[in-house]
Amino acid sequence: MSKKPLILVTNDDGITAPGIRTLISVMNEIGEVVVVAPDSPQSAMGHAITINSTLHSNKVKIDNGPQLEYSCSGTPADCVKLGINEILKRKPDICVSGINHGSNSSINVIYSGTMSAALEASIEGVPAIGFSLLDYRWNAEFENIRTFVKKITLLSLEKGIPEGNALNVNFPKLSEKEIKGIKICRQAKAYWIEKFDKRKNPQGKEYYWLTGEFINEDHKSDSDEWALKNGFISIVPVKFDMTDHKSIIKIKNWNF
Amino acid sequence: MSKKPLILVTNDDGITAPGIRTLISVMNEIGEVVVVAPDSPQSAMGHAITINSTLHSNKVKIDNGPQLEYSCSGTPADCVKLGINEILKRKPDICVSGINHGSNSSINVIYSGTMSAALEASIEGVPAIGFSLLDYRWNAEFENIRTFVKKITLLSLEKGIPEGNALNVNFPKLSEKEIKGIKICRQAKAYWIEKFDKRKNPQGKEYYWLTGEFINEDHKSDSDEWALKNGFISIVPVKFDMTDHKSIIKIKNWNF
Repeated sequence: MSKKPLILVTNDDGITAPGIRTLISVMNEIGEVVVVAPDSPQSAMGHAITINSTLHSNKVKIDNGPQLEYSCSGTPADCVKLGINEILKRKPDICVSGINHGSNSSINVIYSGTMSAALEASIEGVPAIGFSLLDYRWNAEFENIRTFVKKITLLSLEKGIPEGNALNVNFPKLSEKEIKGIKICRQAKAYWIEKFDKRKNPQGKEYYWLTGEFINEDHKSDSDEWALKNGFISIVPVKFDMTDHKSIIKIKNWNF
Repeated sequence: MSKKPLILVTNDDGITAPGIRTLISVMNEIGEVVVVAPDSPQSAMGHAITINSTLHSNKVKIDNGPQLEYSCSGTPADCVKLGINEILKRKPDICVSGINHGSNSSINVIYSGTMSAALEASIEGVPAIGFSLLDYRWNAEFENIRTFVKKITLLSLEKGIPEGNALNVNFPKLSEKEIKGIKICRQAKAYWIEKFDKRKNPQGKEYYWLTGEFINEDHKSDSDEWALKNGFISIVPVKFDMTDHKSIIKIKNWNF
């Protein structure tokens, strides 16, 4: 690339989260950075967008880096729409989302605000990557994965992410030296078993907290769960075309 | 099927919307019906789930039908989780979502609360169908499509929806006689061009409304948009495995 790439950065943990601050700092080494990120945490927002209420956005300055930053009252997908269609003067060369505090592997991709932002960018024709670290803590060690985040972004810019795809990148909770490498994977067939924690409020009215247990019965070595469990970074190419093409013929045989 | 099927009904327009009231009435002709639906509109919520706040649910009675009904403060995906894991005594034989007031064809599937409810059921191993009518009005003519909704549900129970799939069913805004038939399709490659309507509030602060224009440049006859434009009901089998398997080999060649 002759000129500096234009990079749109977003996340779902909110603009002040340590994960996005590390991502911004890495992206400043690669290109011209514009941040459009939620003003408050938006985890598990899936691909929600804001159509029945208003959106607010403010130009903000959070650290001394050269990036431009805008906070937004909306969801991660809203941030990407606002960034691409309203704030940026030209289409970004890439959109990076994260670094998420916690895993977005296997089925978690569908609930993930981090990945919905990346998918929204790919819907709009912008190559995109979502980064997540398997550490839910606010003070997770993002410095361990700087080198890999930079390498994966540079290679994506050089090679070109396949059209209609976004990359779902998950990092094991290991030091840089302990990480064994990078595996290109498929989404494991894992799921959650929900448990609703039923409680009573001070007025005696029942309410619930949604909790759950993550179950993975898919232990094949081409899955993202296998890669992460065995010390590798997993990269899954995900797509926004949700059609199951193989099922079309089956259902045609139903004879409506 | 020897005994009456157990049917979980939900939607994203809220439990009092005419679309779900028609769906409940049709399902009462087929099986034992339990409704778990949002207590307020939840359109465009994508696959959002509620993990950072509490959930409330109330047993309600809205009409004189034999169904059991529960309203829920959460998203469509929350309703399905609550229904399957907390309210129902056994796994439902099918989950139906809708009938949505407005289209969920092509790319709209990813933003759709109606379809996220159906996909959530399929993640939990329950066959699922999302129904949508291409008419955004509150008083849309749902009676026109009763026969088709019943037929598609009965055939799905009889034949079995392929594992890991949910059916995305969209109806054109036509009378029963005008509808030409049913087409099994793929999701069209359509998208939205966002337009942010920038305004000032009474205090002079800027805010936005997200609006957009739907663009379909995919006119092939195997797409859902073609079917709907030509007077057919479209059925797209959608899946929650978002991996683009064809891209895995391409990216493996990047030589990390």
